[in-house]
Amino acid sequence: MHVDVIGTIAEATTDDILYRTVIVIDALRATSTLTTALAHGAGGVVPVETVQQAKQAQQPGDLLGGERSCKKIPGFDLGNSPFEYEPHIVRGRRIVMTTTNGTRGIQKSQRASRVLAGSFLNGRACAAAVFELQRDVAILCAGTQDVFSWEDGLCAGMITEELLKFTGVQLNDFGMALLAGYRHEQDNIASALLATANGNRLTKLGFRDDVLFCAQRNVFELVPVLHDGILVPLQLPVR
Amino acid sequence: MHVDVIGTIAEATTDDILYRTVIVIDALRATSTLTTALAHGAGGVVPVETVQQAKQAQQPGDLLGGERSCKKIPGFDLGNSPFEYEPHIVRGRRIVMTTTNGTRGIQKSQRASRVLAGSFLNGRACAAAVFELQRDVAILCAGTQDVFSWEDGLCAGMITEELLKFTGVQLNDFGMALLAGYRHEQDNIASALLATANGNRLTKLGFRDDVLFCAQRNVFELVPVLHDGILVPLQLPVR
Repeated sequence: MHVDVIGTIAEATTDDILYRTVIVIDALRATSTLTTALAHGAGGVVPVETVQQAKQAQQPGDLLGGERSCKKIPGFDLGNSPFEYEPHIVRGRRIVMTTTNGTRGIQKSQRASRVLAGSFLNGRACAAAVFELQRDVAILCAGTQDVFSWEDGLCAGMITEELLKFTGVQLNDFGMALLAGYRHEQDNIASALLATANGNRLTKLGFRDDVLFCAQRNVFELVPVLHDGILVPLQLPVR
Repeated sequence: MHVDVIGTIAEATTDDILYRTVIVIDALRATSTLTTALAHGAGGVVPVETVQQAKQAQQPGDLLGGERSCKKIPGFDLGNSPFEYEPHIVRGRRIVMTTTNGTRGIQKSQRASRVLAGSFLNGRACAAAVFELQRDVAILCAGTQDVFSWEDGLCAGMITEELLKFTGVQLNDFGMALLAGYRHEQDNIASALLATANGNRLTKLGFRDDVLFCAQRNVFELVPVLHDGILVPLQLPVR
């Protein structure tokens, strides 16, 4: 199984993505938060790029979620903190969600065989899913405005490590670098995340607990998969 | 001291480079080989982009060196293997050198305060030099045709680790990832290099010993610096 890790959305080419299983990672915080929302019973997450698209996609009963510059968007129901997506708020509701980088990564991956959303919270489940899907894999680190974010790379390393428990993989050079980095930091994920540029920014904005929440590994068995433009829990077996 | 590590030549912006000390790394093999050439007494290395430029830059007594697709260029005196640059061949001679990625990285860095050439062979000396130069630093991984190469990233991690022995640094996220990766692999540099895409390619072409040679750390105290378009040994103190 070939596994190519890509450092930013801008770097991803159609060749990287076509016919592959793509895992999009925006560990701080979009893919962590939307996975939490689905695990807490949300009926689906609709990823859109702009605030206007979010308002257009909203149907009666839908909640609007997302952020700009790490903050809740005026008029929206929810921001981008996983703590806001409590079961009694999201259960049975669709969430229309727009974030700066994560939803862009999902949009960019439309031509993949399947698009999954990965985070530390569901890394092992993502690895199990891509093994089950039996396609070559592209792990797309969302990054931050086309600059690589270490939290996404660290999570890519974690998912690769989990995948190696199922099967041998042929890894591109970038994936080798991130796997080695993950192996070095695996017992210090929370402190590594707090030291990143986004970890610092979120801490300054009062979201330190979000970073600590997102640093937890394998809290959820659920893997979000894009189905007709909506992220829903992947149902296995899939073959 | 700010240290930003950049993954490929294409990603480097003028802002990354301007007024900084730039270390260009093409560990397999250009910057390792040209450092070896200077350590063996070559009078200077003239980095050029094309074969035609190499022929135009050649003056009486100069040797032509370099590669295309890892192989010696027809009509050139030397290829890109450090073993070819023996003292009795290069002593006192200028080398006009063109390689696929390394010389492009040096060309791209022209607007830096100073441009150094880094490799495992002189990593500690590079760290000592940039500390002495007291400028912010950009470490430019040459990569391979605009794709990240792990051997260059591993070397960037090594130079960062060596620099941390002299001073605290503010590292970008990409630099954090590579530092962690280096720390994981630091006792297995040769096997890590052999596992990379370029390590594999060179081994298949009969250059496995070149990879092992380039994996040696701190063999040379010499740091190549670009001076009027020619790489020569940096003379310290420089302030």
